[in-house]
Amino acid sequence: MSILEKEVTHLSVKEQAKAAQMASKTLAGLSEQEKNEALHILADELERQAAFILKENEKDLQNGREKDFTQAFMDRLSLSEERIADFAEGLRQVAGQNDPIGEIVSEWTLDNGMKVEQKRVPLGVIGMIYEARPNVTVDATGLALKSGNAIVLKGGSSALNSNKGIIRVIQQALSKTKIPSDAAQLIATTDRKASAELFTMKEHIDVLIPRGGGSLINTVVNEATVPVLETGVGNCHIYFDETADVNKALNILINAKTDRPAVCNAAETLIVHRNWLDANQQELERALKEQGITVHGDEHIVSTFSEALPATEQEWAEEFLSLSIAIKTVNSIDEAVEHIDRYGTKHSEAIVTEDARAAANFMNRVDAAAVYHNASTRFTDGSALGFGAEIGISTQKLHARGPMGLPALTTTKYCMTGDGQIR
Amino acid sequence: MSILEKEVTHLSVKEQAKAAQMASKTLAGLSEQEKNEALHILADELERQAAFILKENEKDLQNGREKDFTQAFMDRLSLSEERIADFAEGLRQVAGQNDPIGEIVSEWTLDNGMKVEQKRVPLGVIGMIYEARPNVTVDATGLALKSGNAIVLKGGSSALNSNKGIIRVIQQALSKTKIPSDAAQLIATTDRKASAELFTMKEHIDVLIPRGGGSLINTVVNEATVPVLETGVGNCHIYFDETADVNKALNILINAKTDRPAVCNAAETLIVHRNWLDANQQELERALKEQGITVHGDEHIVSTFSEALPATEQEWAEEFLSLSIAIKTVNSIDEAVEHIDRYGTKHSEAIVTEDARAAANFMNRVDAAAVYHNASTRFTDGSALGFGAEIGISTQKLHARGPMGLPALTTTKYCMTGDGQIR
Repeated sequence: MSILEKEVTHLSVKEQAKAAQMASKTLAGLSEQEKNEALHILADELERQAAFILKENEKDLQNGREKDFTQAFMDRLSLSEERIADFAEGLRQVAGQNDPIGEIVSEWTLDNGMKVEQKRVPLGVIGMIYEARPNVTVDATGLALKSGNAIVLKGGSSALNSNKGIIRVIQQALSKTKIPSDAAQLIATTDRKASAELFTMKEHIDVLIPRGGGSLINTVVNEATVPVLETGVGNCHIYFDETADVNKALNILINAKTDRPAVCNAAETLIVHRNWLDANQQELERALKEQGITVHGDEHIVSTFSEALPATEQEWAEEFLSLSIAIKTVNSIDEAVEHIDRYGTKHSEAIVTEDARAAANFMNRVDAAAVYHNASTRFTDGSALGFGAEIGISTQKLHARGPMGLPALTTTKYCMTGDGQIR
Repeated sequence: MSILEKEVTHLSVKEQAKAAQMASKTLAGLSEQEKNEALHILADELERQAAFILKENEKDLQNGREKDFTQAFMDRLSLSEERIADFAEGLRQVAGQNDPIGEIVSEWTLDNGMKVEQKRVPLGVIGMIYEARPNVTVDATGLALKSGNAIVLKGGSSALNSNKGIIRVIQQALSKTKIPSDAAQLIATTDRKASAELFTMKEHIDVLIPRGGGSLINTVVNEATVPVLETGVGNCHIYFDETADVNKALNILINAKTDRPAVCNAAETLIVHRNWLDANQQELERALKEQGITVHGDEHIVSTFSEALPATEQEWAEEFLSLSIAIKTVNSIDEAVEHIDRYGTKHSEAIVTEDARAAANFMNRVDAAAVYHNASTRFTDGSALGFGAEIGISTQKLHARGPMGLPALTTTKYCMTGDGQIR
């Protein structure tokens, strides 16, 4: 029986978190080269064991078919040789990114001669809570290990077999490297209570990163005593100001709405200045219709558009994640900012205008991780901004805001060197 | 009836938080000069109204005497003309510190011509939860306003009259400045449930900062859904390695233990290498005795010291905050690091050694905000390190670690300027 055929041993969540913490101490002391070598071995091993992973994935797909999951859900769950090769390529790219660990963030010497160095160090153990996408199992592990952190993964139950298969390959691969196998752990139970233990395990887990829909994220935020890095719900708005250029406006709107409607940086609501709308309504309607976009609007939109449904309170507040859009008419930037203050999720917000002062006013006042003047909200993304792979997009204000790359998985430590200094 | 005689209006906690949030939007747009002018007016007004504040403080002192509070407690609660002048001076110093708001943290241009600027902006509304010290009311307000944040204060009930007096003076002073009076709010109820509302008011409060003892901090961490910046419990250790220089070792220990025993960067436990102890026990005992320090020790200490009590599990784990010390003997750095891993609070830890490799080993492996080689833990302090005033010392890893000055009260925002860029 190969190691891959063995059952995942039945440790408790606490024992797994403790094992990850022990491993994190070794991992924190490894060099960049040792970590990179390990990531390459991991990548090679994933490709070599693709058939095993696909066999495990097929069990999840079979369950999914029996439970009649949606096509979109099955697409996210489904692996292939090619997707596994993409995972491996992602790990090799992370190996190529700069290692933030050991960086001297600042240094100075006090008058008394004591030297102060603020050094970048790993967080320790990352708890990653996510839904059905098995790619997160690989991506998050790669980013955690490169930044010197151990990781405890808790994926969705519908991908449990796939995740178990992937973690076995990862642990087997790690046993050939300087990184302890225990540095990547999967909580393989479907017991909701057992997994919720993670949320309060402050002595062993340094940060929780929930990735998925709003209800998953809210559950973690509400139950956790471990600090949380909130990611990703994006109820993003595009505001067409009075002086918006028609071509720029429609290009940006269509790109932000249709390029990938299901992602968090897609546009969900168009806010439009009444004067702009009066002049350009036909072109706007035509552009939306050409793309097959369904319009939900306020009273003015419903009464003037040839086809528009009244937008409900929920539709203003939540993501469509599909080819639907809500449209709100306003008479000023103030009204636009108020609407965003009320319904926005502090992710990405854009203004289209030819008036630089209006743009500055909007960008200063809107409270979001990313604000845009005359560009699509789709750029709020680690790779689009040149950060490399990201572990998620933070919509909170503490620690990291916007796309989170490797530095978001680090903290700092003040290291003081003296010669007997006292105060 | 002067404005100072009026009762604080009875708004709900939610209404106060909302008012602070409204005010924060105006405050975020003020210039450094406008904020500095306001801080100077605040300082002058506190001095001018000292008699009123002392009258209110006397009510708390009277209550305290009736309830037979400890002398140390009464000392912290007690104000004087001189202490109020110190508060005012603190505000003037904060006015003199650099304003972090508006700083461009990083900027670049994508190949498509879209410009990216990461700008420093205020957090928004800070919720400050603290115990009996009325100085926090002034200090925290000054730091919050300078960094463009509104603040909602919830102080201990034993200082309620003092805090009400101070906040009335602050709000009256703010009414003469560009900063809205609502930017500083005091929750004046003693209803535990009402104040706990603050902990979950995510839509109006951006961060909670608890300052005080371990139980206050734990309550906030356990109940909060608003992100928390944990501060300050310091169970700090000094480790005398085998090669520690006797003079440096004893100087550092005595300074860290006795300079201000009740503060969080004071030493609570000495860990001592057995070989060092065998050679220098008499000098160590004499130095401790001279300072009137009570020793609680492990078995070896109890059996060899002329006076030592056995240390309980609680004494290893908690702060004495007095002239007592726990002493643990070890046979290696590994044992010292293990003891700190088990009992430390990730605040400040020191090694005294003449062996640079031993120092590096200790400093790399100990997980704390500040690690010291041959210097006193007392330097973990904003003013000692040259940061200026601090809002607390973070013992957590996210967002800010160690002494937190003005930058810890900020976040960033990505501001993108394009010309119609789409993805």
